[in-house]
Amino acid sequence: MKATIYEGKKTFSVVEKEVEDPASDEVRIKVAYSGVCGTDVHIYHGMMDKRVSIPVTIGHEMSGTIDAIGDGVSGFSVGQKVVVRPLDDRGVKPSDKGFNHICEDLKFIGIDSPGSMQQYWNVPAFTLHKLKDETDLKLAALIEPLSVAVHDVRLSELQADETAVVLGGGPIGLLVAMVAKETGAKVIVSEVNENRIAKAKELGLNAVNPLKLDLVEYVKEQTEGRRADVVFEVAGVQPALDVMTEVAGIRGRILMVAIHGQKKEIDLFKFFWKELKLIGARVYEKEDYERAIELITKNELPFEEMITDVQPLSNIQNVFENIDNNPDGMKVLMDCQA
Amino acid sequence: MKATIYEGKKTFSVVEKEVEDPASDEVRIKVAYSGVCGTDVHIYHGMMDKRVSIPVTIGHEMSGTIDAIGDGVSGFSVGQKVVVRPLDDRGVKPSDKGFNHICEDLKFIGIDSPGSMQQYWNVPAFTLHKLKDETDLKLAALIEPLSVAVHDVRLSELQADETAVVLGGGPIGLLVAMVAKETGAKVIVSEVNENRIAKAKELGLNAVNPLKLDLVEYVKEQTEGRRADVVFEVAGVQPALDVMTEVAGIRGRILMVAIHGQKKEIDLFKFFWKELKLIGARVYEKEDYERAIELITKNELPFEEMITDVQPLSNIQNVFENIDNNPDGMKVLMDCQA
Ligand SMILES: NC(=O)c1ccc[n+]([C@@H]2O[C@H](COP(=O)([O-])OP(=O)(O)OC[C@H]3O[C@@H](n4cnc5c(N)ncnc54)[C@H](O)[C@@H]3O)[C@@H](O)[C@H]2O)c1
Ligand SMILES: NC(=O)c1ccc[n+]([C@@H]2O[C@H](COP(=O)([O-])OP(=O)(O)OC[C@H]3O[C@@H](n4cnc5c(N)ncnc54)[C@H](O)[C@@H]3O)[C@@H](O)[C@H]2O)c1
Ligand SMILES: [Zn+2]
Ligand SMILES: [Zn+2]
Repeated sequence: MKATIYEGKKTFSVVEKEVEDPASDEVRIKVAYSGVCGTDVHIYHGMMDKRVSIPVTIGHEMSGTIDAIGDGVSGFSVGQKVVVRPLDDRGVKPSDKGFNHICEDLKFIGIDSPGSMQQYWNVPAFTLHKLKDETDLKLAALIEPLSVAVHDVRLSELQADETAVVLGGGPIGLLVAMVAKETGAKVIVSEVNENRIAKAKELGLNAVNPLKLDLVEYVKEQTEGRRADVVFEVAGVQPALDVMTEVAGIRGRILMVAIHGQKKEIDLFKFFWKELKLIGARVYEKEDYERAIELITKNELPFEEMITDVQPLSNIQNVFENIDNNPDGMKVLMDCQA
Repeated sequence: MKATIYEGKKTFSVVEKEVEDPASDEVRIKVAYSGVCGTDVHIYHGMMDKRVSIPVTIGHEMSGTIDAIGDGVSGFSVGQKVVVRPLDDRGVKPSDKGFNHICEDLKFIGIDSPGSMQQYWNVPAFTLHKLKDETDLKLAALIEPLSVAVHDVRLSELQADETAVVLGGGPIGLLVAMVAKETGAKVIVSEVNENRIAKAKELGLNAVNPLKLDLVEYVKEQTEGRRADVVFEVAGVQPALDVMTEVAGIRGRILMVAIHGQKKEIDLFKFFWKELKLIGARVYEKEDYERAIELITKNELPFEEMITDVQPLSNIQNVFENIDNNPDGMKVLMDCQA
């Protein structure tokens, strides 16, 4: 079988190795597609060398079929289409209050342990979610990031008669916007990259450039002065943090989806004044995966447009170099059987 | 009648003036007691000279009895004990979504219009809440700040089996701690002023000094590693903002009660990582006043201990000078009939 390996220093290798039998409580997956996530790009850049055990196979956005079943695993059969929810919550403790998806000792599969950018992948059976026979495996590689979006929108409690502003139109921001719009709410995407604005429009979204218009005034016009009921911060930059407290209306909910590595300046006065809520959101829970699977299987949203490239595993080095040179691209998939 | 007047430049005067008849839709209140609030001290310091119309009578924490009734007011009789909820929400608009207490055009009575530090005070009848005949008028002057605490605890959704950490043991922090404890929750007050720690202990609260112990470790010990379910930020300083995201456990709710005039540094990573919530809280709603009135009337909490001094109106200049020189004092009341 073919496997890709991150070797550190912006370098991937592609190796031939033996297919391994699944251990007990595990299954072997024949990986169909594995998406490249912003986190994978961070790893490639060496930003997470302390966390990953180099050399290591990375990847956590995937789809595939069951290829072999280990001892003690029941309820699955070979050929079943599946996705992995890459959260290893076996270290969960009572102090985690039942929030397994963010438990203190959570391990993220594909970062803290080997990932999906290989032809065959052995994973614990408890991470599996079944797909329908008719689910498209290419689209199914979007289920992981789509589950992030589903989780964010669920935690926001966005209602059909409300307005949401999505700050940042990257892969996650656009999926959040699509899921938010699906609830019936009015959605406005704010993005500074004109090519990404064009992509958002292709997806049927209303997208504007905050460098070219006054975002707060625009949102006020669109809402008869109410401003946004929900704001999704998915840009990860200070200007988004500055505008989020302005664009949110009275009792607005701000979802903190972006990951901020350093402390940032926040206008706490606005939290007091308008009784705003800031809601941290991390990955997904089981029900978010189930909802994302449903959305992908129904395929009524323009998910295909999110996939801007599909490349064979052997091209991995090239793929990561290209992502660096092309900030306009959206989701790139590795075809793990090509 | 006697009235106090803030003249600017840290100066109050005390004048004799005519008692005025209430306009239509107003009542005249014979003010019993008027508490000195941190905001009043801010005004005295000249920090709000742009907002207040000098010369002006200030004050918004009060109790009294109805003395005269204007045209069009029904349901009240002379002698009825009342408190004023000092929110003039007559400018409310549909874009305020029904949150009248924080509506965009809210006027705060006693800041944006004349206040209670006088013998008789005319106010719109819609601001009144009735007390019981047996309600103590001295304690009733605490209803306004107690309503702040009731509002904060209500918005926190604190449960009896949870632990709350209150950062800051000033008047508001201690009232928050008392109301939080009343729900059955475990409460830990963090305060740096030893005299205020002693006061908190007098009130039956568990209070610690974060300069003398590691607050996060202490809270972990007290909660079997869970940390705080709810944190009330009532200190208003950067060290409290730094510790709030540490001391909060998974899915912890942080109530932003303190008013931060400048942008401050916040650890947003922790919001993402633990799915924390930050909840802005401002003043109170009608139901908070009703609950505070109930608590004061039952008088089962050590409210008397919160009142550290009662002074006649004519001593107002002295009272404000003393507050500046004595950061240990808690609530000072003006006796408006003395
Ligand atoms: N909460 C979670 O579990 C989770 C999961 C995945 C990703 N993330 C985080 O979500 C964020 C977005 O992920 P992504 O992959 O879409 O990243 P991305 O970098 O591709 O997208 C960010 C977008 O924001 C845009 N932007 C920059 N400045 C802006 C501004 N001032 N206003 C509006 N837009 C602006 C950029 O042009 C870019 O398109 C990242 O911080 C990522 O780490 C969080
Ligand atoms: N949200 C609202 O509607 C509302 C209403 C009233 C007051 N407030 C605000 O609430 C805050 C508290 O009001 P107050 O009158 O009790 O003020 P206060 O200044 O008397 O109390 C603050 C307390 O925090 C303590 N403190 C300072 N540094 C600390 C630290 N590192 N850790 C722990 N404690 C520390 C101080 O010693 C002081 O006792 C103020 O910011 C005030 O503006 C808000
Ligand atoms: Zn990812
Ligand atoms: Zn006050």
